[in-house]
Amino acid sequence: MSPSSPRGTKISHIGIAVRALGESAPLFEQILGLAEVPLGDADGAKIRGFDASGSLIELLEAGNPDSPIGRFVAKRGPGIHHICFSVDDLEGTLAKCRASGLQLIDETPRVGAEGKRIAFIHPRSTGGILVELSEH
Amino acid sequence: MSPSSPRGTKISHIGIAVRALGESAPLFEQILGLAEVPLGDADGAKIRGFDASGSLIELLEAGNPDSPIGRFVAKRGPGIHHICFSVDDLEGTLAKCRASGLQLIDETPRVGAEGKRIAFIHPRSTGGILVELSEH
Repeated sequence: MSPSSPRGTKISHIGIAVRALGESAPLFEQILGLAEVPLGDADGAKIRGFDASGSLIELLEAGNPDSPIGRFVAKRGPGIHHICFSVDDLEGTLAKCRASGLQLIDETPRVGAEGKRIAFIHPRSTGGILVELSEH
Repeated sequence: MSPSSPRGTKISHIGIAVRALGESAPLFEQILGLAEVPLGDADGAKIRGFDASGSLIELLEAGNPDSPIGRFVAKRGPGIHHICFSVDDLEGTLAKCRASGLQLIDETPRVGAEGKRIAFIHPRSTGGILVELSEH
């Protein structure tokens, strides 16, 4: 495979906006038996991560009402907030997005919570889904 | 591992409610380069599936406004609708849910769209997330 092959695209994580970490974590930790992955807070959210065979479930609790997660929960209620795909070639994927007329939130990659290079696509361009791209 | 070990828990698929398949599919098909997996219609929804390294992205377009996806989109707008985990032992996982006081939509497994045994957990019990369980 060439470095720009998209064949390695996988779900890196799913970000779930929750009212309270303590309310939602037991399902993933105790019932589904997923191992916890330590994650730092980011973007005004307290985060707990659980590993589902290589894809992370990230539970996001708003640290304050004006944070992105706080605004999401106030507007739509708790629920799945975004999905992140890890790709082989982030710059190339962003170039394809631009060529297809998709609106990017991050025109160029920035460093995300886990130290990886990431970029978000605007939900306006994806039929309402907030999609994050990260580099392997 | 015993047959009831939860170590094999993985994301089976993510169901995404979209306004129109034609509007949302290009991101997954052309930009992310995911291979399509043929899926039949189910629960009043037209479905297209794309394989992300073993986890499916299922795009769900309402066939009519009174279908579950039609009602979801009318109420919340398009977005991620549910997440399905495949587990080694569905009955055992449902028993754990019951023991933890979680409310099940399906008290016993039923056969889902792909011919697998499935059951849904009520979002009331998961902090607002619609979770499906399926058996490997």
